Amino acid sequence: MKRALQLAEQGLGSVEPNPMVGCVIVRDGTVIGEGYHQRFGEAHAEVNALQACQEANETTRGATAYVTLEPCCHFGKTPPCSQALIKAGVRRVVIAMTDPFDKVDGGGLVELNAAGIETSTGVMQHEALELNSAYRKRVQTGRPWCIAKWAMTADGRIATSIGQSQWITNETSRHDVHLLRGRCDAILVGMGTVIADDPMLTARPTGPRTATRVVFCSTRLPSTSSKLVQSAQQGPLLLIVSSTINAERLAPLQRLGANVYRCKSSDLVSIASEGIEHLGSLGMTNVMIEGGGELMGSVVKSGEIDEYHIYVGAKVFGGRTAPGPIGGKGFETLAEAVQLRLVGSQQIGNDIKLIYRKALIS
Amino acid sequence: MKRALQLAEQGLGSVEPNPMVGCVIVRDGTVIGEGYHQRFGEAHAEVNALQACQEANETTRGATAYVTLEPCCHFGKTPPCSQALIKAGVRRVVIAMTDPFDKVDGGGLVELNAAGIETSTGVMQHEALELNSAYRKRVQTGRPWCIAKWAMTADGRIATSIGQSQWITNETSRHDVHLLRGRCDAILVGMGTVIADDPMLTARPTGPRTATRVVFCSTRLPSTSSKLVQSAQQGPLLLIVSSTINAERLAPLQRLGANVYRCKSSDLVSIASEGIEHLGSLGMTNVMIEGGGELMGSVVKSGEIDEYHIYVGAKVFGGRTAPGPIGGKGFETLAEAVQLRLVGSQQIGNDIKLIYRKALIS
Repeated sequence: MKRALQLAEQGLGSVEPNPMVGCVIVRDGTVIGEGYHQRFGEAHAEVNALQACQEANETTRGATAYVTLEPCCHFGKTPPCSQALIKAGVRRVVIAMTDPFDKVDGGGLVELNAAGIETSTGVMQHEALELNSAYRKRVQTGRPWCIAKWAMTADGRIATSIGQSQWITNETSRHDVHLLRGRCDAILVGMGTVIADDPMLTARPTGPRTATRVVFCSTRLPSTSSKLVQSAQQGPLLLIVSSTINAERLAPLQRLGANVYRCKSSDLVSIASEGIEHLGSLGMTNVMIEGGGELMGSVVKSGEIDEYHIYVGAKVFGGRTAPGPIGGKGFETLAEAVQLRLVGSQQIGNDIKLIYRKALIS
Repeated sequence: MKRALQLAEQGLGSVEPNPMVGCVIVRDGTVIGEGYHQRFGEAHAEVNALQACQEANETTRGATAYVTLEPCCHFGKTPPCSQALIKAGVRRVVIAMTDPFDKVDGGGLVELNAAGIETSTGVMQHEALELNSAYRKRVQTGRPWCIAKWAMTADGRIATSIGQSQWITNETSRHDVHLLRGRCDAILVGMGTVIADDPMLTARPTGPRTATRVVFCSTRLPSTSSKLVQSAQQGPLLLIVSSTINAERLAPLQRLGANVYRCKSSDLVSIASEGIEHLGSLGMTNVMIEGGGELMGSVVKSGEIDEYHIYVGAKVFGGRTAPGPIGGKGFETLAEAVQLRLVGSQQIGNDIKLIYRKALIS
């Protein structure tokens, strides 16, 4: 199952909105085939693994299939995997987690059992759940998995007191951010960042998917001469705007290719929440919030952040007025503060990348 | 030599103001004895290693001694190690670094060579220099090695916007701080911390040395009822005060046992620098700065910090006004900002400890 999970992870960024799935087929204690879901719309893990067995002239009759997710039992883009396993004559299917997707949700297990196949579920379940956290959130809540990303100094500053910030981290760290951008469905920023940096928000080099560039606008809008608006024909740009912004101000931006989603609310915390829900309704699985501080503060406050990617550069800026990564009002008491779990750390030269997820509610 | 360096490190906190030294004696490819300098005033590494050989009935004639630091050639608290090695009949001495202390500074090598002993120097020199950075700074500049320590959230805050801060890190991390306190010569704080926290600043449990508790006072003084002043008879307390603070205000504190050092200057940056020089003149090797933000800002600004121990707790506070670890004016430009080297990171449950040193000037 460990190997199956490793295989599954290779689909990260390519399979969404599908889950990542890996499959290893074993007969008489020997691996005879393995596969994973490689790309949305293409074959599922089980089919790829069965195919590998066939190509190696290995019979799957009486074999055991280790699958990280319950096999699907419905016709989607591809035929159901439960039937493929039954047809292949496997004797036993070991599963890490059941599929929360309502067209499956235990149905795959029922079909396998009905065909006389033995099933075991929950093997390395924790790891499988962690791997597909984003998929699970989208399926269960309709909202995308939200990744906050920032670079800060060792004393927690994202810029000096006069606003200098390029660069806090080294080139390798910055490249790492582009890899993250290249696997996300959207990159979210506030108007502060658009005005201060006039960014492109593209992944360089491009990754397995092209993120929609999303700007949250409570009062201000990007100028028609901003890089984001100027490049709206080349890459998708979405403005999520307050109810108070009138259509006349939006029209010239829309003419240049910007899409607009108008919220019912007007304060940034509510806009953030409404906007993220909208991104989920567009089928987005992973979105990343790049800042600035005020948007980050609003999204943190709205409870939307699921994961944090924090790059700590080997510098100190100091200064009472040098900004931190999360602006807004913040949490006044320790009891309100968001509790996290450190799920990974990676030294990148003199930088260090820290990855946190929301603490599990026990 | 790697083993000798490991041995040397066991003296950390016990040998200062001496350097940490380890020694391994090898004959015919076999380790026949090892030792390290265990405690100030007691036997040096070479003598302990020779003693170990004797106890194991191993002859040292023709052996090779690996020593992390050039053997001393002067009578200090103990007789010179160069003579002990000569008398033991070792054939060769391999040395990581020469001793910058002016009573040695190459003299040990000269004596060994004069006695016909072969010497090699510079083996794992970088590691040896790093290990004895604090000793080297004190010997070369007369100033102590300054360790800044703070606990902050993943978004770089040392307290919420209304000042809550207990606790940002977990119990194990807090215990780790006490280990650091227990090996330092002094613990430095500013008046903000004394007023806000009324701390004791003792190591619990006690370590190999008892740190002098040092308060930097530019305008305000601790109250006679503060825990620090009340416990001044039990553990050393030193107030480093501005030139503008008059004797009458100091007298009641001195009567309760506080020592006072009056600076020539009156601004906190200059007081920090003068005060740290004074601690060096008292023979201190390692001092730690615990905050608060304003003192930290002054000490960082004065260029005194050599090492940073940063404990990152798995929480976010957010908030524009929640304080960061380094207050004051900070550095306005990236060019001025202090460049660091990440020399270690250690996961402590959900916390992570980051250790930095000043970047080497190339």
